[in-house]
Amino acid sequence: MEDITRPLLPNINYPADLKQYKEEDLEQICQELRQYIIDVVSVNGGHFGASLGVVELTVALHYVLNTPYDKLVWDVGHQAYGHKILTGRKSVFHTNRLLNGISGFPKISESEYDTFGVGHSSTSISAALGMAVASQYKGETDRQHVAVIGDGAMTAGLAFEGLNHAGIENSNLLVILNDNCMSIDPNVGALKEYLTSITTSKSYNRFRDDISNVLIKLSELGPNAHKFVKKIEKSIKGTLLNQSNLFESLNFRYFGPVDGHDVVRLAQVIRDLKDIPGPKLLHCVTVKGKGFALAEKDQTKWHAPGLFDKITGEIKKSAVDKPQPPKYQDVFGHTLVELAEENKKIVGITPAMPSGSSMNIMMKAMPNRAFDVGIAEQHAVTFSAGLATQGLVPFCNIYSSFMQRAYDQVIHDVAIQNLNVVFCLDRAGFAGSDGATHHGAYDLAYMRCIPNMTVAAPMNEEELRNLMYTAQLENQGPFSIRYPRGNGVLTDWKRPFKALEIGKGRKICDGEDVAILTIGHVGNFAVEACKELNSEGIHPAHYDMRFVKPLDEALLHDVFKRYKNVITVEDGCLQGGLGSAVLEFMADHQYNANVTRLGIPDEFIDHGEQQELWALCGYDTAGIITVVKKNAVRRTTATIAS
Amino acid sequence: MEDITRPLLPNINYPADLKQYKEEDLEQICQELRQYIIDVVSVNGGHFGASLGVVELTVALHYVLNTPYDKLVWDVGHQAYGHKILTGRKSVFHTNRLLNGISGFPKISESEYDTFGVGHSSTSISAALGMAVASQYKGETDRQHVAVIGDGAMTAGLAFEGLNHAGIENSNLLVILNDNCMSIDPNVGALKEYLTSITTSKSYNRFRDDISNVLIKLSELGPNAHKFVKKIEKSIKGTLLNQSNLFESLNFRYFGPVDGHDVVRLAQVIRDLKDIPGPKLLHCVTVKGKGFALAEKDQTKWHAPGLFDKITGEIKKSAVDKPQPPKYQDVFGHTLVELAEENKKIVGITPAMPSGSSMNIMMKAMPNRAFDVGIAEQHAVTFSAGLATQGLVPFCNIYSSFMQRAYDQVIHDVAIQNLNVVFCLDRAGFAGSDGATHHGAYDLAYMRCIPNMTVAAPMNEEELRNLMYTAQLENQGPFSIRYPRGNGVLTDWKRPFKALEIGKGRKICDGEDVAILTIGHVGNFAVEACKELNSEGIHPAHYDMRFVKPLDEALLHDVFKRYKNVITVEDGCLQGGLGSAVLEFMADHQYNANVTRLGIPDEFIDHGEQQELWALCGYDTAGIITVVKKNAVRRTTATIAS
Repeated sequence: MEDITRPLLPNINYPADLKQYKEEDLEQICQELRQYIIDVVSVNGGHFGASLGVVELTVALHYVLNTPYDKLVWDVGHQAYGHKILTGRKSVFHTNRLLNGISGFPKISESEYDTFGVGHSSTSISAALGMAVASQYKGETDRQHVAVIGDGAMTAGLAFEGLNHAGIENSNLLVILNDNCMSIDPNVGALKEYLTSITTSKSYNRFRDDISNVLIKLSELGPNAHKFVKKIEKSIKGTLLNQSNLFESLNFRYFGPVDGHDVVRLAQVIRDLKDIPGPKLLHCVTVKGKGFALAEKDQTKWHAPGLFDKITGEIKKSAVDKPQPPKYQDVFGHTLVELAEENKKIVGITPAMPSGSSMNIMMKAMPNRAFDVGIAEQHAVTFSAGLATQGLVPFCNIYSSFMQRAYDQVIHDVAIQNLNVVFCLDRAGFAGSDGATHHGAYDLAYMRCIPNMTVAAPMNEEELRNLMYTAQLENQGPFSIRYPRGNGVLTDWKRPFKALEIGKGRKICDGEDVAILTIGHVGNFAVEACKELNSEGIHPAHYDMRFVKPLDEALLHDVFKRYKNVITVEDGCLQGGLGSAVLEFMADHQYNANVTRLGIPDEFIDHGEQQELWALCGYDTAGIITVVKKNAVRRTTATIAS
Repeated sequence: MEDITRPLLPNINYPADLKQYKEEDLEQICQELRQYIIDVVSVNGGHFGASLGVVELTVALHYVLNTPYDKLVWDVGHQAYGHKILTGRKSVFHTNRLLNGISGFPKISESEYDTFGVGHSSTSISAALGMAVASQYKGETDRQHVAVIGDGAMTAGLAFEGLNHAGIENSNLLVILNDNCMSIDPNVGALKEYLTSITTSKSYNRFRDDISNVLIKLSELGPNAHKFVKKIEKSIKGTLLNQSNLFESLNFRYFGPVDGHDVVRLAQVIRDLKDIPGPKLLHCVTVKGKGFALAEKDQTKWHAPGLFDKITGEIKKSAVDKPQPPKYQDVFGHTLVELAEENKKIVGITPAMPSGSSMNIMMKAMPNRAFDVGIAEQHAVTFSAGLATQGLVPFCNIYSSFMQRAYDQVIHDVAIQNLNVVFCLDRAGFAGSDGATHHGAYDLAYMRCIPNMTVAAPMNEEELRNLMYTAQLENQGPFSIRYPRGNGVLTDWKRPFKALEIGKGRKICDGEDVAILTIGHVGNFAVEACKELNSEGIHPAHYDMRFVKPLDEALLHDVFKRYKNVITVEDGCLQGGLGSAVLEFMADHQYNANVTRLGIPDEFIDHGEQQELWALCGYDTAGIITVVKKNAVRRTTATIAS
């Protein structure tokens, strides 16, 4: 019979509990923490591989640091499940990413241990530097400030900007580089190759040790040798030691690489580093998905696998009777290849989202025409602009909320020059369980104000295909197409391409009471609403605008001449979106109608299923029905009154 | 009598002309080109120091490269005057930056030699990489692609993202690092220190040579020594040669540093580099302002000095009879120090614009509380967020058009967390002669759609002071204050602080015909307009909204109850700005009025004096008068008709 070890994790709810244990217990605690994550994520879903990879680092950090007094910033936050479990949220961890449950990312309002809200990558160095500079200014010299950042996140420009500034501030900052060679997909870029060369061929420290040993031995060869050795030493001290490592070039003291799964060694190293002043970087090598064999093997699939059997690793599929409509993502991926086969000018660009955006389909089919540029949205856009100047037609696929990172590049490098770059904004509208950081709420507003920009959104898969087809025809200028995460509505979606007229919407149905103007996928909610309303004798008209810019002015003239009640529906913020565009048209042409705008209100909406959030904001089918009825009543009342 | 040399520049209008000369003539051509720039800029104004610094580089590049077939991308473009003069624009160079004249920056539509439009920094590597990848894809293997980027621009994340991607593409890209230790102000950051250490202490190549020499000599000491030498060599080859230089860490081949004022040597080096495949970087050391002693000495002042006497260097001031109102910039700078003296929580952040924003006043007065973080807008905002989490109140001053670079950070790191960061958006509205890339046209639209964000704009210096005062009171959350480049309207501006109620506008004057709603400095145009109109018997009401968000709802209820004609005026784009906000209010509360929105139309507006551009877009005093009269007529007609 096996030796039964008493479990320790049940007694640990806060870092103070963890600190009661001896160093030799840490390994067991790590095993239990890892198993706890597997247990809960397998039945509740969420991000998986990243948190498994940093179990030892998480335990070591909370064991050694004095959190929350010491400031610990997790970059991106995919990997912070262990942190959440050890900081008071073990008992609610099963509510992770659910409506009204805890967030899938660190969040200041959730815990004092969450020092900085994250979700987008590469913010941790800048944020932790801000904290460190604040401590310095306030004279809190004993406070530690730690940023844990992945090698994928390190490729983003923001991380570099943070390093460049940190290198000249003498504040107490420790950057822990969690090097697992992965973003969601395998990490790419020169930095990744550099880090690999450090960790695989000959370690930097080993090199330094070698040189030292050789020099010592050489010195023993006699006075002549000694003289030369001094000369080499001087050169090395002056140049190599300061500059030979990329991070040391930026004034960081570099330590590592260390094994990120040796919790005792990690604890010792972190303890040692507490006493070293100034900016320093610990290079920590980990395996994403560590401890769950399948996740170690297929790290992209197991980044966020959904529900699975924790023993067999079988990923659970929801039972379906009939064929489901495809995801917009897959329609994008397959359609792009189809178009690129015909149009040799087409190239594809993704900043580190090959699998999420389905750009991987083109990357596999046409490896020399599809580019994963790493977590680098700014570069993705300016690189696309460069390609476009040479007559190519780049399809640059970036999630709506990540496109915020490249806003200046969209304006300055693409739109001002009127270049034919096609922006495919994935995850537009509510992203779902990723929450406020990931909702694509603002793109209609921030794109619409840019001159030269076409702003379109498909109502279904066929429209997505036709918009993509249209966008790559001759010299269309900057062209943005937004679509949501998840499934469309057509099972029979692979229909022949048809060019769409730019700025032309379409009438879905005529009506008599109210006109509903929709943009994109939410048009399907209106279709459902109309069906139900018709059965109650209410007959709203419904138009799919297709374009927020340019607006279909002929369509709008018609609508405002015929209807005194107009409802706009969009999966985006109410400030500056479709509804505002329609109001601007109305004012410019001196129409007069009651316009009700449905969309995301002026607040940050937390995580939840998309359906829950659409309902919450009142623009799902039920929400539209309610508003149409109100308007219909108003019409009736108005008719009676007149 | 001095030897009279025949001038050469008069015969040079295009690179083909330049190529007719021998290498030994290049120095004279440089001298003449430099003098030409001095002659024209001294009487026409414009950027000065940057172009003087790259005269030799410009001549060498066009001498050796086959432009425009070869692609030459100038980063930022401040430095491209020599390029413009040598590529067909010598005769129109005197129209530089004037309305309908040539642009102060490279611009695709202006010349086939301008391969990429610039203005904002750090885009050149990404753009040139896009061109190089396109050439590779098209099989144009003989085409050269060169990005010329300053060490200041190299600190921005976008440049790093470009390097990181370029390092894994085997395309023909040459990055020329124009290292002059300057942005507009002296460059800052760890990278700058690194570059200085290369160029001043012991050059990288020199180090390599030293090591080689020493190793050769050591080998001669006998077989034992020989054995160790081999071991060192192996280590050095494996590690040092590949990784010892920051750029080589990123898979670039590094060359230099070279003297950027030795035109013959430069031409030779560039010629040699044409044959070396893959990504490579030439480190070129130059002096900003080279050849004009005063400009070399005070490089910030002479970045863009205005008009000056080219012999004495005396900078011309426009003759004034009476004291002028101060620049908004100076009011910001002095007020910030005043506030910071009282409120110890206040800190100041600028991304490389100390003198442009007047943050240099605080940097001088309180060096430990004001930070120049380099050209790094993203970091500036996230760093501010980090400071704010610790209870400090950062005033983060970023030009409106540059804030586009940090849009995600404003949303994700500040607004979602509701942190009290005060964004001071300088150069909001038309920036003037810098043109489309620099106009702050979009901030009202892109800020207004962000939840939690206060969006304010002062009509004069006193309001700016009071807004700044208000923004630093307890927990105001994200607070943005936009103001234009240039002078305010009050000579007596330094009045005691007064807290303003958030979301409260003010009535400037009552009226009877029309209500004018203005935001910010353009309110003064409305004041002038009202004066003139009053003298003609027309009496519009005028309200200074102060806040675009939150809107003053009480004020708007009052306006819409009393006026059927409403005019909104803003120094920003018409899509999504103040006008749209007012329309949204009107629709949400079912008011009905004729609303005319004045502002920047939906197109990119080129350079010109601010006054010219305001007039062009019809919202200067004359434009407002015209529109009020139309509305007044409409009222009259409507009255008659009814």
